[in-house]
Amino acid sequence: MTPATAAELQRFIDAGRGVVPADLVIKDVVLLDVITGARAATDIAIVGDRIVGTYDRYEGVEEIDGRGLTAVPGFIDTHLHVESSLVTPLEFDRCVLPHGVTTAICDPHEIANVLGAEGIRYFQDCARHTLMDLRVQLSSCVPATPFETAGANLSAADLVALRGDPSGIGLAEFMNFPGVLFKDEGCLAKLEAFSGGHIDGHAPLLSGRDLNGYIAAGIRTEHEATTLSEAREKLTKGMNVLIREGSVSKDLHALIPLIDADTSAFLAFCTDDRNPLDIAEEGHLDYMIREAIRHGAPLHHVYRVASWSAANAFGLKDRGLIAPGRRADIVLLEDVEACRVVQVIAAGRLVTPERFAARETVAPVGLASMKAAPVEAGTFRIPANRTATRVIGVVPGRIITEDLAMELPISGGAKQIDLEQDAVKVCVVERHGKTGEGGVGNIGRGFVHGFGMKRGAIASSVGHDSHNICVVGVDDADMALAVNRLIELKGGFAVAEGGRITGELALPVAGLMSDRPFEAVHDALIDLRAAAKALGVTLAEPFLQVAFLPLPVIPHLKITDFGMFDVNRFELIEG
Amino acid sequence: MTPATAAELQRFIDAGRGVVPADLVIKDVVLLDVITGARAATDIAIVGDRIVGTYDRYEGVEEIDGRGLTAVPGFIDTHLHVESSLVTPLEFDRCVLPHGVTTAICDPHEIANVLGAEGIRYFQDCARHTLMDLRVQLSSCVPATPFETAGANLSAADLVALRGDPSGIGLAEFMNFPGVLFKDEGCLAKLEAFSGGHIDGHAPLLSGRDLNGYIAAGIRTEHEATTLSEAREKLTKGMNVLIREGSVSKDLHALIPLIDADTSAFLAFCTDDRNPLDIAEEGHLDYMIREAIRHGAPLHHVYRVASWSAANAFGLKDRGLIAPGRRADIVLLEDVEACRVVQVIAAGRLVTPERFAARETVAPVGLASMKAAPVEAGTFRIPANRTATRVIGVVPGRIITEDLAMELPISGGAKQIDLEQDAVKVCVVERHGKTGEGGVGNIGRGFVHGFGMKRGAIASSVGHDSHNICVVGVDDADMALAVNRLIELKGGFAVAEGGRITGELALPVAGLMSDRPFEAVHDALIDLRAAAKALGVTLAEPFLQVAFLPLPVIPHLKITDFGMFDVNRFELIEG
Repeated sequence: MTPATAAELQRFIDAGRGVVPADLVIKDVVLLDVITGARAATDIAIVGDRIVGTYDRYEGVEEIDGRGLTAVPGFIDTHLHVESSLVTPLEFDRCVLPHGVTTAICDPHEIANVLGAEGIRYFQDCARHTLMDLRVQLSSCVPATPFETAGANLSAADLVALRGDPSGIGLAEFMNFPGVLFKDEGCLAKLEAFSGGHIDGHAPLLSGRDLNGYIAAGIRTEHEATTLSEAREKLTKGMNVLIREGSVSKDLHALIPLIDADTSAFLAFCTDDRNPLDIAEEGHLDYMIREAIRHGAPLHHVYRVASWSAANAFGLKDRGLIAPGRRADIVLLEDVEACRVVQVIAAGRLVTPERFAARETVAPVGLASMKAAPVEAGTFRIPANRTATRVIGVVPGRIITEDLAMELPISGGAKQIDLEQDAVKVCVVERHGKTGEGGVGNIGRGFVHGFGMKRGAIASSVGHDSHNICVVGVDDADMALAVNRLIELKGGFAVAEGGRITGELALPVAGLMSDRPFEAVHDALIDLRAAAKALGVTLAEPFLQVAFLPLPVIPHLKITDFGMFDVNRFELIEG
Repeated sequence: MTPATAAELQRFIDAGRGVVPADLVIKDVVLLDVITGARAATDIAIVGDRIVGTYDRYEGVEEIDGRGLTAVPGFIDTHLHVESSLVTPLEFDRCVLPHGVTTAICDPHEIANVLGAEGIRYFQDCARHTLMDLRVQLSSCVPATPFETAGANLSAADLVALRGDPSGIGLAEFMNFPGVLFKDEGCLAKLEAFSGGHIDGHAPLLSGRDLNGYIAAGIRTEHEATTLSEAREKLTKGMNVLIREGSVSKDLHALIPLIDADTSAFLAFCTDDRNPLDIAEEGHLDYMIREAIRHGAPLHHVYRVASWSAANAFGLKDRGLIAPGRRADIVLLEDVEACRVVQVIAAGRLVTPERFAARETVAPVGLASMKAAPVEAGTFRIPANRTATRVIGVVPGRIITEDLAMELPISGGAKQIDLEQDAVKVCVVERHGKTGEGGVGNIGRGFVHGFGMKRGAIASSVGHDSHNICVVGVDDADMALAVNRLIELKGGFAVAEGGRITGELALPVAGLMSDRPFEAVHDALIDLRAAAKALGVTLAEPFLQVAFLPLPVIPHLKITDFGMFDVNRFELIEG
């Protein structure tokens, strides 16, 4: 909230005192106090972007009938990558704000890995036009590792140059935790540059003195705890634990028992990576709230976690309570226990389809980010003279993988897939135009177990975190077809089967986001799922699982455009 | 806490991980977690001014044996006037830090009313040398009202010029709440200048829509709630309630029932005005903690209120928890329930007498602030021709007064005291040299009930908030003697009886603070109390009660150098 002028202050004071009408009044609503849990009927008076009066009667130039509704403070998603919704920030706004999410703190890590500062500036530009308050942290780890080819490299100086935008809240998740613990020079430079400001964390399974060292570096918020004991250790060491429920990483139910009267001020919710299907089918933070209450977490503490505690963890002192002087971010519920959202007020104004339609548009960026040259079936040949093979084991619904050992057949001097063992090929094709000198660039080749794929191939230009093309396939020709179709689409997802494309979704904005409405993306994803299922794929979220195969900061075995990568030893391995 | 350099970060990380020794380790101490209430034995590792490791074993260059002790986060006094301790900020530090108060947020309102910006700068200078973290807010209401003569007048521009000192946390208690509600131009200018930063509140008995208007102006913390219902309304309207236990205003016991698991994150403690006698006899925040626990408030929530919640209310994100990355402000207790403090670590270093002795001194200011000309007995004559009189009714232990009506005798054309009705004289002599043109300046004259005084007079250069000389007496000659002695002492307290001075304490620093050690001030106050008691005075704290008689922002009837003042109507009255 920007500082108020004397003229504005006069209006806040007068309207708060009831001597002039407010701009907007929610009449006769039940207000749930996230401090005490009390529920009381009241009017809520709003002037400009802020609340000026509660627990009293008010007149407003505009009035909303709140009878039968309960007002709670707007929800705050404390950590997410908008790119994972596969739509642009403005579409994300239109998709998620009606779920009550009035503030979203995003890390533009994906687009930054493709476009660097240009991508972050695009998000900052979008944040000026969203109805929700979209906060854009600065991505701390671009590229995530030196063992892959990314589209950009952001130094401490690059990040400092991006600081000062009104959407900023410091540095985004510091996922290179080994770099922190081993005092990598570039990491220290970033920690130093942002010391004293907010530095978000990412430290899966870190504990004991290593966790202490990581926190001592000035990192205060963290969303990677997946078990109660991990979350409790982080909490008791002063971290704000951001409970995550994404589309792949789902930690909510494991962590619900953490939410109680003692802890609620130190917790928050986040979605990290959540796709349009889950948003449409389950919901967003409203889903997390609903589930937490349903599983016994105390109701007003759940709503506190979703609002005040989240705001407080990130230094957003202007919001999180329905109280005078606070930003008027208010969710009106038909059913508090079930968190059924019926209306949302963001920065003092009712959210409507017309207001979404009236937003200024922001020209997309990265429309020419797919710089890979076309490939052919032979590109995916894996020459070898021994059958012993380390194979990535996909774990359904998890981004962590297993490091499997298999004997694979050899034919024509090359390793082959083995459907009986559910071992198919996975390759990563460099797409930033940084290798190959105009021809085909780096290709990492290997095998993956657990897709259940019987034919064809699926390819994705979403491939965390460097977003090279990741393709999983039974048939080399279909793999080439799917990859080449992606290049034509300027990025996206493609399914090939028997020499033809059977499903596709174009993601031309940096090869990560659609330029279409979220509803269209939702429908396309359903078609894509069907096309993948037709290949025999048994995973519920095949595209998400493909997209995380290249992520070399998550144990145990991954693949980048450099080749197969042992995350535990943090080194490339021989195929 | 200042931002860390890369070199410092390396040491924090290495020591946190235990690969190099910490600077200081508290070994084998029980740590009370103010989040969950858990108590566990651990070492606590410290490097420089911050904690780097908890819940693990550590080696330190220096080690403290913590066996048998419990560690809790340092206490934070969220609102106080150092001047009320009657000693300088450096003596306050030496007096109060051993009680566990590692941070004190002060409003130099008293010295600012005498010396203006020079007084605030003196406090800022002192804050650079205290072992505790003394935070100096900028006094928002100097003078408190236009109905008295103060030594200074601080405009919004004057305050802005004082901003930027490292000790700063925005604007101090905005006590001119009528000025806010009625949109006084000077008030609005100050609120505007500090909008978006911290603005502390002061709004006794304000409620309903007036309270909403006051909060909507951007005021978030408040310490004047004296009843549960007042505190609950402020809390539910989003204010952080600062529970106060001063020497005159004692609200702790009334507000203890407010402290529970729901509310603790939104509460804090403060002392406002606390004198050396109470600090020596009862304690400081340690007393508040002890009493709150003894009366049933949940233990770890009480300690949370005293530390994390207080820090959080004022945006001090670097402290309030014993956790890696936080400022190493730690209190070691022998008895947690009784809050018996045995050692204190402030900013990473053990607090010892030697460290107090080694602090740099700061030259006192305001040594020539008593600019009043000597008076004589006739100065206090109150000419009148009618007996009907409005008399200030002192309420023991409260700064609020009653507005009494009495019939007083007239003799020689002047109103007289009446010991049978316990009505004696109270006069306020302007002492800033701003009236009288070198001779005797403004004098306000009236009567007060409730002292029980039978003879003599007591005078004080501490007279909230403008700190003119306030004298209460039975005998005009003794009144003159006491006032004149104060002028010689450069300020302080004096008791006169039968033509001689029977007790005195010099307060030469702005007429408010002693230049002597707090122990000497304590002893002098005991003697002064005895001298006052010898006059027949029945009040437990006669000097504090005298000092608050001129405070024209506290209902109902007060007196300034302009005359008797009706606080409710906010106007001067006829004697």
